[in-house]
Amino acid sequence: MHTSAKLLGRYLAELAQVTDEPGQLTRLFLSPAMRRANALVVTWMRDAGLVTHEDTVGNLIGRLEAPAAPRARTLLLGSHLDTVRDAGRFDGALGVLLPIVALAELRRRGITLPFAVEVVGFSEEEGVRFASAYLGSKGYCGQLRAADLKLTDAAGLSVRTALETLTPPAQPFVLPGRAHAPRDLLGYVEVHIEQGPVLEAKKLAVGVVSAIAGQTRAKLVFHGRAGHAGTTPMHLRRDALVGAAELTLAAEALARRTPGLVATVGTMSVAPGAANVIPATATFSVDLRHPRDVIRRSALRQLRATAARIARRRQLTFTWTPTQDNAAVTCSPALTAALAASVRSVQGKSLALPSGAGHDAVVLAALTPVAMVLVRSRDGLSHHPDEFSSPADIALALEVLIDFLARLARTHTS
Amino acid sequence: MHTSAKLLGRYLAELAQVTDEPGQLTRLFLSPAMRRANALVVTWMRDAGLVTHEDTVGNLIGRLEAPAAPRARTLLLGSHLDTVRDAGRFDGALGVLLPIVALAELRRRGITLPFAVEVVGFSEEEGVRFASAYLGSKGYCGQLRAADLKLTDAAGLSVRTALETLTPPAQPFVLPGRAHAPRDLLGYVEVHIEQGPVLEAKKLAVGVVSAIAGQTRAKLVFHGRAGHAGTTPMHLRRDALVGAAELTLAAEALARRTPGLVATVGTMSVAPGAANVIPATATFSVDLRHPRDVIRRSALRQLRATAARIARRRQLTFTWTPTQDNAAVTCSPALTAALAASVRSVQGKSLALPSGAGHDAVVLAALTPVAMVLVRSRDGLSHHPDEFSSPADIALALEVLIDFLARLARTHTS
Repeated sequence: MHTSAKLLGRYLAELAQVTDEPGQLTRLFLSPAMRRANALVVTWMRDAGLVTHEDTVGNLIGRLEAPAAPRARTLLLGSHLDTVRDAGRFDGALGVLLPIVALAELRRRGITLPFAVEVVGFSEEEGVRFASAYLGSKGYCGQLRAADLKLTDAAGLSVRTALETLTPPAQPFVLPGRAHAPRDLLGYVEVHIEQGPVLEAKKLAVGVVSAIAGQTRAKLVFHGRAGHAGTTPMHLRRDALVGAAELTLAAEALARRTPGLVATVGTMSVAPGAANVIPATATFSVDLRHPRDVIRRSALRQLRATAARIARRRQLTFTWTPTQDNAAVTCSPALTAALAASVRSVQGKSLALPSGAGHDAVVLAALTPVAMVLVRSRDGLSHHPDEFSSPADIALALEVLIDFLARLARTHTS
Repeated sequence: MHTSAKLLGRYLAELAQVTDEPGQLTRLFLSPAMRRANALVVTWMRDAGLVTHEDTVGNLIGRLEAPAAPRARTLLLGSHLDTVRDAGRFDGALGVLLPIVALAELRRRGITLPFAVEVVGFSEEEGVRFASAYLGSKGYCGQLRAADLKLTDAAGLSVRTALETLTPPAQPFVLPGRAHAPRDLLGYVEVHIEQGPVLEAKKLAVGVVSAIAGQTRAKLVFHGRAGHAGTTPMHLRRDALVGAAELTLAAEALARRTPGLVATVGTMSVAPGAANVIPATATFSVDLRHPRDVIRRSALRQLRATAARIARRRQLTFTWTPTQDNAAVTCSPALTAALAASVRSVQGKSLALPSGAGHDAVVLAALTPVAMVLVRSRDGLSHHPDEFSSPADIALALEVLIDFLARLARTHTS
């Protein structure tokens, strides 16, 4: 075990060197660094005895058949290999590399699984390049639509054009179908860093996810009228920014009085954008999350009504454009119970916690039951070079997955 | 008169073609278009009988001596020839071109003035290129300091480097001294569009300025802590943007309950600036104006105290960097009375109103008594291609200045 945990640490360190931006860790969907990352991880998959291939959206897949049962169902394990800009080394990568090392360790221990396993390194989860998340897992699950292919990056390149570079020159690009029929799958298990402060506060290395919060994101624009900051009396103003400021505070107040709800305005820009000009437009984002969809949807309705009230009172117009809407995902009771048993066995006690962050598991849930293990993040930090999960916590998570796979093997064959 | 007003309209139209950006009107300090603007206006000054020169900060000066009194004092007339980006044709230009035409018309009418006149086209008032206003009039008044010369534009070029291009190659650049000693001046009179809605509401073509509002501008930064929008509970957040939103609303509320005060947050940007990340910093501007300095300063103190309270309550830090501070300017009672008499004579009635906008007159006030005439702006609009003052209103303002100069000549000689 000690050897395996060290190997995992080396894999994480080595993969962290594969970047599009020297001096920081940045790997964007289908970028040169992502091509190199797949080429590197594929060697580790093969070392662990996996048979590898890449699908038409750049997902890296390593498969281990069940030798005794060629038609056995498949357990999916994985996470994503892309990163945000200036990222840490754990977010995503941990959930791809840890299962590879776990399978190698099982082989070393002479344990054969009675089901097939696929480790998937999804090519896109962070939504950085095309401002749309889960392109990799959506492709794997046959959920990519024509509209997704039309999304463009900052250079104006479409998803379709980027994907076509993966297709051999003589062949036409086709939208990928789902990798498996649901009846052929046992489920999907994802290991991920927590990206929040709960496990640290509870002094636990790992926890098991009860549900993944549903998310609503929208782009809002208030439109008013520009005017001279010195000559336009207060009562004649139609200032878009003060409207946006009111809604920002309303979102915070709503989340504070609604247990479990989080609301964030993460972007804000104004035009014309000069110190001496009254803002004519304010453009900003709203992000709402809650583990229960009914509460999130009610919060969404309240906030939209508040925006309409603000606009009416201030003689502004507003547009509310939904940019993301993911239902909450309840994790599989059976897989989660098995994971919790492994956590109890390895850590002494288990903790079930909701995940406020979205993960590939959100998309996989449409295909198969899902479960997740979270690993403590120092200071709750992620999406930052200082993101850190300790070697001891990672070793513990590795032992949990090994225990879980062995446990599943026993119940499967029993 | 009719001919002169038409000539002025042609001048305004022709100067509006001189731009750094084809398809819109943009003339920035010392830009190629500003060089061409000076070259064009100098021909009109000479046509009006003025003797011209350019000073070392690019101000264009046309002088008419009093033939009968070579040591007579000088009346200054003028405004600025630079513009904001995508500007209208009246802001600034009107106050340079109208006096030129007025002097030509006086000459045509055979009226000789018993005092000297200088028409000045200031090279910089809008503060666009170096984010600092009044560089032209400050140069003319000997108020440019070493710190001003170190300001840099978006390309990283300093004011000093830009100014050195005006100095003959063999000569060293020297900071200009004031153009005149105060005792040699009669005053400064500026004609400008109103840039606000008051004259339109009162159905008057022109008005006389009672005072120019004092202005305080500051750049504010709230610093908090970035965090994941999904995994950071509301009570653990240190969100810089919600702090900025609170201060934006506090500034508005303060201005609404303080008669004559205007407060504007015209810029706002957040970092990291992603929909799913809690803002770590919010950077924004505050602009406060009031015709009475004591009220503006009290408002400034209240707003700073509010910012400190918000920061304390939200565990943010904040910086408040003053970027501009101009005291209110009370216009010269004597010059203003003479202007009001001319307005009454030409328009039937006169209206005194404060100017919420800053003007070159603010800087000139340190050198000599100042007075201003404002011309009605359609919809109160300025700093916009749709900025418009009607030919009839401009003709009336021209007649006012001609009447004022003739009136001043009579009182001067009497």
